[in-house]
Amino acid sequence: MELHILDHRLRVTSINKSGLSHFTHPLIKLIFLRRRTRCKFFSMTETPENYTVLLDEEGFKELEASSDLQAEGSVWLPLNVLSDAVIASPGSQAPGVTKIAESVIAPLARRHVSVFMLSTYQTDFVLVREKDLPVVVATLEEEFNIFREVGGESLLVRGRDIADGPHKNAKQATQAGLQPVLIPQNRFCVMSLDPDTLPSIATTLIDVLFYSGSPKEDEVPSSGSDLERIKFFSFSLIDGYVSLVMDTDTQRRSKSCLRRFQKLFDLCPLDSKRFLDAPVSPPTSSSPARPGNCGEWCESEDNPSASTSAASWPRSHSRWPTATSPPTTSAPSVSTTLWFPKRTSLV
Amino acid sequence: MELHILDHRLRVTSINKSGLSHFTHPLIKLIFLRRRTRCKFFSMTETPENYTVLLDEEGFKELEASSDLQAEGSVWLPLNVLSDAVIASPGSQAPGVTKIAESVIAPLARRHVSVFMLSTYQTDFVLVREKDLPVVVATLEEEFNIFREVGGESLLVRGRDIADGPHKNAKQATQAGLQPVLIPQNRFCVMSLDPDTLPSIATTLIDVLFYSGSPKEDEVPSSGSDLERIKFFSFSLIDGYVSLVMDTDTQRRSKSCLRRFQKLFDLCPLDSKRFLDAPVSPPTSSSPARPGNCGEWCESEDNPSASTSAASWPRSHSRWPTATSPPTTSAPSVSTTLWFPKRTSLV
Repeated sequence: MELHILDHRLRVTSINKSGLSHFTHPLIKLIFLRRRTRCKFFSMTETPENYTVLLDEEGFKELEASSDLQAEGSVWLPLNVLSDAVIASPGSQAPGVTKIAESVIAPLARRHVSVFMLSTYQTDFVLVREKDLPVVVATLEEEFNIFREVGGESLLVRGRDIADGPHKNAKQATQAGLQPVLIPQNRFCVMSLDPDTLPSIATTLIDVLFYSGSPKEDEVPSSGSDLERIKFFSFSLIDGYVSLVMDTDTQRRSKSCLRRFQKLFDLCPLDSKRFLDAPVSPPTSSSPARPGNCGEWCESEDNPSASTSAASWPRSHSRWPTATSPPTTSAPSVSTTLWFPKRTSLV
Repeated sequence: MELHILDHRLRVTSINKSGLSHFTHPLIKLIFLRRRTRCKFFSMTETPENYTVLLDEEGFKELEASSDLQAEGSVWLPLNVLSDAVIASPGSQAPGVTKIAESVIAPLARRHVSVFMLSTYQTDFVLVREKDLPVVVATLEEEFNIFREVGGESLLVRGRDIADGPHKNAKQATQAGLQPVLIPQNRFCVMSLDPDTLPSIATTLIDVLFYSGSPKEDEVPSSGSDLERIKFFSFSLIDGYVSLVMDTDTQRRSKSCLRRFQKLFDLCPLDSKRFLDAPVSPPTSSSPARPGNCGEWCESEDNPSASTSAASWPRSHSRWPTATSPPTTSAPSVSTTLWFPKRTSLV
């Protein structure tokens, strides 16, 4: 198998719900005005707690410092896993989250390396901190040929090439962790879009991303079973590929607002969209939420492999040409890390 | 002739260029997401100095207090002039700015009543402060039948009905004022749009309105004769009518960004757009700019009639059905007050 370290240096940030309006200006630029920015990696996800914005350093420059913006200090590097099948026949079934969990995340967890998972329509990214790269390479080079993408070229990387050896984080985890999982009732729709069609759904997307919290003048506030569902909307624009993950219920309830969105969705070929059920595994524990370092970024520092129980489902191919360099896979998936914000805990 | 006091209570505000990004969130809502706001009167104009935003009290509520926002304290009421010809035959030639200056602005100037002029594709609005209404009615009721629009009905208004008599501002101006006029080399395009087409040009409009100050990654900064031209872009959405006034040069230079805009423009019937030359009257004085009360709102407190030397041009009819109540006229015009910001001075 191959592991590609992509040519993006990423920052993981979080914007408070109440502070989003102060970031509308840079975010709209990053989403819709590609000519005005050098940002090549942008992802924005609304969860019940906040907005998680993942973007490269060029994009990060656009965000003004503010008490509403929490920026994790590290630089993160996105990794992309290519199975032997994909290498032999590009465009074929890409490895799913389960395979990635087993081959990448679990071994890293045993070395106490935190990961951040970002799944899009096109592919699944495993993000690791740049400072952890020596450990990552040392840990995974047995199973993978590891390449670093630099300026469009793939350079083979070996552990011995990397200055800072794997002495850090070398302590083995002494016990496995079990984590409770929040199981919302949502069903999700994952779709991709031709980026050139973005302008045609701009007002709809802007409405959903930036104004979904404010009531409509012609709408009666909905009552009832919202507690069972979580609010989730994710938009990614990565190397020109657009990916959207949205709650199908949100989609139904906002029919008029989302009419054009819906239309676009209906026009998508069947294999470029998927409806997903939320993960069905039951909570494994009812222990109270663990305070501290697991909170902010919803990553499980001590045992990231436990955060990979999200569903995997039949993979499909993108409607856009697949680049020979990443993103090479085209499987709908869902950001597992974001499913259980602030509920993750060790037993 | 008839003078209609429209059913809007307006605020006149100014946003610093450097502070616009903090207002992107409410402004985009007011421009594109009509279902999310009760605002029925919105106008935003970019000039070299700042953004002038004119909006009703519902819209004003959306703008957070900030050092970048200057809000004039008064409530302003928009007046609309209907000539006898228009009353006899709705849809016919509406009175131009020259006629309005002569019949409305000059008489008010002699009573020291300040006005704010807003011209759109559809009509020209003369704004007066609510507190000046008694003087306005007393001054103009000889020449006009004055109606107040209330909940869709037009009620005849007489000076004696209005409590606060015309004793204020009663002093006659003792001398005429002359004011220097900035004559930019721009040519302007005035156009109207079906409001339902707004979403299709959203990203272009957003780009022009909110990001024109930041360079494009793929654009060489232009050099040279910008000093002779002033930056001007005006967008109005009033009672569902959209009006755009833009510099044709800006339009040409940003061809790729404005391609769809241009396409829309080209699709407009000839009589729903006009190219305008800037006013051709020479500066009447080279006296230095007058500090003080003329600055902020660019209104000439002492002699508003002097600010009406902008061109008038052949009128045309709107492509949208003309309402029987205002806006009843459909003449392209140009905001005269905004032409000479901070250059207006008394000789």
